[in-house]
Amino acid sequence: MTDSATFPLNRWYVAGFDWEVKDAPLGRTFLGRPVVLFRDAAGKIAALEDRCCHRALPLSCGRVEDGALRCGYHGLLFAADGQCIDVPGQGKIPTKARVAPYPVAVVDQVIWIWMAREVDGKAGGQPDCEPPRVPAHADPRYRFKGGAFHYQAPYQLIHDNLLDLSHVGYVHTKTIGGNARVHMEAPTNVAADGEHVRVVRQMKSSQPPATYTAAWPFKGLIDRWQEIDFHVSHLQIFTGAVDAGSESIDNPDRGGFHMRGFHGITPETATTSHYFWTMAASSHPDQPDNLDTVHRQTADTFEEDREIIEAQWNNMQRFGQPPMVDIHVDAGANRARRVIALLDERNAEYAPQ
Amino acid sequence: MTDSATFPLNRWYVAGFDWEVKDAPLGRTFLGRPVVLFRDAAGKIAALEDRCCHRALPLSCGRVEDGALRCGYHGLLFAADGQCIDVPGQGKIPTKARVAPYPVAVVDQVIWIWMAREVDGKAGGQPDCEPPRVPAHADPRYRFKGGAFHYQAPYQLIHDNLLDLSHVGYVHTKTIGGNARVHMEAPTNVAADGEHVRVVRQMKSSQPPATYTAAWPFKGLIDRWQEIDFHVSHLQIFTGAVDAGSESIDNPDRGGFHMRGFHGITPETATTSHYFWTMAASSHPDQPDNLDTVHRQTADTFEEDREIIEAQWNNMQRFGQPPMVDIHVDAGANRARRVIALLDERNAEYAPQ
Amino acid sequence: MTDSATFPLNRWYVAGFDWEVKDAPLGRTFLGRPVVLFRDAAGKIAALEDRCCHRALPLSCGRVEDGALRCGYHGLLFAADGQCIDVPGQGKIPTKARVAPYPVAVVDQVIWIWMAREVDGKAGGQPDCEPPRVPAHADPRYRFKGGAFHYQAPYQLIHDNLLDLSHVGYVHTKTIGGNARVHMEAPTNVAADGEHVRVVRQMKSSQPPATYTAAWPFKGLIDRWQEIDFHVSHLQIFTGAVDAGSESIDNPDRGGFHMRGFHGITPETATTSHYFWTMAASSHPDQPDNLDTVHRQTADTFEEDREIIEAQWNNMQRFGQPPMVDIHVDAGANRARRVIALLDERNAEYAPQ
Repeated sequence: MTDSATFPLNRWYVAGFDWEVKDAPLGRTFLGRPVVLFRDAAGKIAALEDRCCHRALPLSCGRVEDGALRCGYHGLLFAADGQCIDVPGQGKIPTKARVAPYPVAVVDQVIWIWMAREVDGKAGGQPDCEPPRVPAHADPRYRFKGGAFHYQAPYQLIHDNLLDLSHVGYVHTKTIGGNARVHMEAPTNVAADGEHVRVVRQMKSSQPPATYTAAWPFKGLIDRWQEIDFHVSHLQIFTGAVDAGSESIDNPDRGGFHMRGFHGITPETATTSHYFWTMAASSHPDQPDNLDTVHRQTADTFEEDREIIEAQWNNMQRFGQPPMVDIHVDAGANRARRVIALLDERNAEYAPQ
Repeated sequence: MTDSATFPLNRWYVAGFDWEVKDAPLGRTFLGRPVVLFRDAAGKIAALEDRCCHRALPLSCGRVEDGALRCGYHGLLFAADGQCIDVPGQGKIPTKARVAPYPVAVVDQVIWIWMAREVDGKAGGQPDCEPPRVPAHADPRYRFKGGAFHYQAPYQLIHDNLLDLSHVGYVHTKTIGGNARVHMEAPTNVAADGEHVRVVRQMKSSQPPATYTAAWPFKGLIDRWQEIDFHVSHLQIFTGAVDAGSESIDNPDRGGFHMRGFHGITPETATTSHYFWTMAASSHPDQPDNLDTVHRQTADTFEEDREIIEAQWNNMQRFGQPPMVDIHVDAGANRARRVIALLDERNAEYAPQ
Repeated sequence: MTDSATFPLNRWYVAGFDWEVKDAPLGRTFLGRPVVLFRDAAGKIAALEDRCCHRALPLSCGRVEDGALRCGYHGLLFAADGQCIDVPGQGKIPTKARVAPYPVAVVDQVIWIWMAREVDGKAGGQPDCEPPRVPAHADPRYRFKGGAFHYQAPYQLIHDNLLDLSHVGYVHTKTIGGNARVHMEAPTNVAADGEHVRVVRQMKSSQPPATYTAAWPFKGLIDRWQEIDFHVSHLQIFTGAVDAGSESIDNPDRGGFHMRGFHGITPETATTSHYFWTMAASSHPDQPDNLDTVHRQTADTFEEDREIIEAQWNNMQRFGQPPMVDIHVDAGANRARRVIALLDERNAEYAPQ
C-alpha cells in the first residue's frame, strides 16, 4: 500500500454522499486505503480500515449491530472508534484487537474523510481545518442531484478535464457543447492563490447549447460564463447564461440560468478514481419540470468525459511518457498540477512518527 | 514454475474423482504443474505432464486412442508412462520424445496423485506410502455425493476455514449454522501427532440447524459433535448429533445423524486451489429421501465459505501482510500451519538429484 | 515500447485491407506501435502515430475532416504527414506540434506499412523496396475474400503453423484435413534463399477433403499439392489438386482446383498478433456458387488454428521454456525462425541516428 505516497495526505476528501450509507456497511478504497463506512448508534457515519484484525476479512462483508460492526467470519465486533468490543466465545479481548479509524464529517450532505491514518498503532494526523462547504446544496434557489462514477484513470486527468472546459466543444456536442470554435476561443483568465486555482471563461453572444435551451426560455443568443474553482480534493464549477446583452455577467448576483456543479475527485488507487458529483440548477417558473432533463444530460456529459479520459489513460500507458505539447487552454490545469506536486513533496511531514 | 517450492512435495494429493475421467483427457494443474489425466487400455488412470514435448500444446487438447494419448497438433502418441510411441510420418522416434509421468492411485473412488516428478530426465520421488483411505465412501450405512470447487485463494486459507468450525455460526446461518454464540463457545480440544491434527468440539443441548432437521427426526434439542482430522493434503470431518441426553457422544459407535465429509484441498498454484469434496450421510428410515437436501445444502454451505475466503484473500492482497491478531478458535488452524511450514523446509530433500 | 526490438524493422507489414478504411479513422497497433489509419483529401491512406501530441488521446478517437485528422479532445488538426495545421483558439502552432508518420502503400487491395518511424524528431528509415504483390487478387481466374483475425499469441507461432501443413490432418478434420497419415507422410521439400523459405509437399492419389469436394467435381482420388512461400511479413500458400494421374502437378500451369492463400502476419505486440488473410479460389463451371462454401470453410479452418495456437502459447507461458523436441515436419518452420533471428540482430542498424 505504498500508493498513498502519490496523493496529498492530510486533506479532506469526498467519501460519498450522506444518502448512500444506509443499514449495511459500505466498502470503498480511498488513496489506496480500503475503508468501511457505517453508522453508529446515533446515526453518525464512522470510517474504519476495511480489514478485520483477526483474519483480514473486509469488515464491509459483515453487518451493523446496534451501531457497531460485526465481522462476517468469526463475529468480532468493532465500535465506531475501531476498538474491538466483543470476541465471541472469549472473555478477554486482546489488547491489539482494534482497527484504525479515520476522521469523518458530513456537511451539506457530503461525507468527507480525513486521509491520515494510524500506522503500527501510531496516531495519524487529525483534521486541522473544517471540511469544505457546498453552498449550492443548501441554496433554496436550486435543486440538485448527483451520482458516483468510477474511473479507470488517475485522478489528475479528471482535474485536467474540469479545469480546461475548452474541450466541451469537441466532446459534448450533444449536451453542453457545439460551436467548438466559440469554446476554444473564449477569453480565459487563470488566477491562483495558495492551493486554490480559479479559471474564468466567458462566451458572449453565443448559441445556447441543448441542455440550456431544454432548461430555460432563452430568447436567442446568450452571454455565458464558466467559473471553475479548483481545490486539492474537489472542484466547484459555476456555469450559466443570461440573454445576450441583458445584464453584466461579471456581476456575482447575475440572474439567468445557473448550473452549480460539485466535483469530488477522490483517488481510489494510483490508477483509478472516484468521481462524486452533484449538479444544482435553477429552474425557470415557466419550465419547472426541466431539471430532470438537466440532470440526465449532466450524467451523459460526465460519461462522455469518462470515455475520453479512460482512452487517454490507456494510450498514456501504451506510449509511456514522451513529452506533451502545451497549448493555450492548459494554463489552469498546469497550475493545479503544480499545487499537487508541491503537496506530494510535503507528504513526508504527515507520516506518523 | 517455481511455485512448487511453496507446497509440501512427495505427498498424495487429490486429483479428482474416479467418475470424472471418461473417454476424453482431463487437464488440471496441481502444485503449479499442469497435468493431464486419461485412462490406459486397461481402464487405469494415468497422469502425464500436460505438454507435448514437440511444440508444447497441452496434451489435454488431444484425444485418447487405445489407451494412449494423441497430441491434437501433429499427432505424437504417448503411452501411459509418458514414452512417445508414434511420430506420424517419421520412422525413428527421438530419444528425448517423452513427457514426465506422475504416480497415480485410485482408492475409494478418489484419484490420488503423487506430486514429485522427473526434472530434466532425472526421476522424481516414488510413493513411499499407500494413498489415504476414505472409509465413508465404502460404508453401507451412508450414501455420498461430491463435487469439485475452484478457489481464487491459496489452499491454506481453506485449511484454516475447515479447522475452525466456529465460523459456522456466522457464515452458514441458512444451513448448518445459526446460534452463533453456541458455536463460538463450544468447548474445543486440539491434539496433534506428527502431520496429523485433530480438533474436537461438542455442543450439547443445542438447537438443531436447518440441515439436521431436514435429514433426521430429532425430538428437540441435540447433543452435537464436530471431529476434524487434518492431514497435509486433505481433511476428514465427522459431524453429527443425537437427541440431547439420549447417549454419550464420546462413544465412537454413537448413533443418531452422521455427516462424514471428505475435503481434498489441492493447491493449483500459489494463489488458487482445487477443493474436491464428498459428503456421506446417514438417513433415517422415516426420511429416506432427505439426503438430496443434505447434499444440496452442503454444496450451498461450501459456496458460502468460498465467497468469504476469496474476499479474505482479496483483502490480504490489498493490505499486504500486517500482523493478525489470534483468538481462541485459531489453535487448530495454527497447528496445521506449523505442519505445512515444517514440510516446506524439507522440500529440498525431495528435489531430483 | 521496447517491444519493437523483437521484430524485424524496416520491412513492409500488412496493416489491413483497402476496403477496411472508410470515413472514420482506424486504430491498430503494429510491432508495439499504436497507429491510426485514415484517408487524406485525395482518398489516399495515411498512417500516423495514434497519439495526439497535446494530451495523448488516441487520434483514432477523433474524426476525419477534409482529409485531415481532428483530435476528439481539444480539436488539434493533423495533416496526413503528421504536421499539426490547426490549434483551435490559438494563432501560432507550436513547432513541436506534430506526430510521427509512417510510410504506407496500397497494392492489390492490401495496405502495407513500413515499420520504421521517427523517434525524437529523427527521421525513421524510408522504404528501400516496393511493397509485395499479391497476384491472385488481380487474377481473373479467381475470386477472393478475406478477413482479419486477432491472436493472443506471438506471430512466430503462426509462421510455424503455416510452414508445417502436416498439422492439417489432425487439426482440420472437418474441412481440408482428414487422412492424417497421408499429411504427415507427404514428401516434403524445403528450400531457402535469403529471406525467402519455400516448402513444397505433394500428396498423390489421396482422398479429396471436404472443402475440395464442395468446390470441384473430382472423379475420385486426387493428386494434391501444397506450396508455401514464406516472407518475413507474410506467406503465400498455393494449394490445389487435379484428378489423380490426369496431369503432372509439378507443372506450374497445371489445371484443377486452385486455392491461393495470402497470410499477412503482423505482430501487434510481443505476445499478440494480427492475421490478415485472403483466399482466392478457382471455381468449376459446373459449380460456380461453391466459392462461398470454400471461403466459409477457410475461415472455420483458420479459427481452428487460432484455438490450437493460443492453447499452445498459454501452455508455453505456464511451462516457461523447457527444450522442445524437433521432428521431421519442422524443417521449414525452423528455417524461417533463423531468418527472423538474423534480422532481429540487424535491427540496431535501422534505429534512427
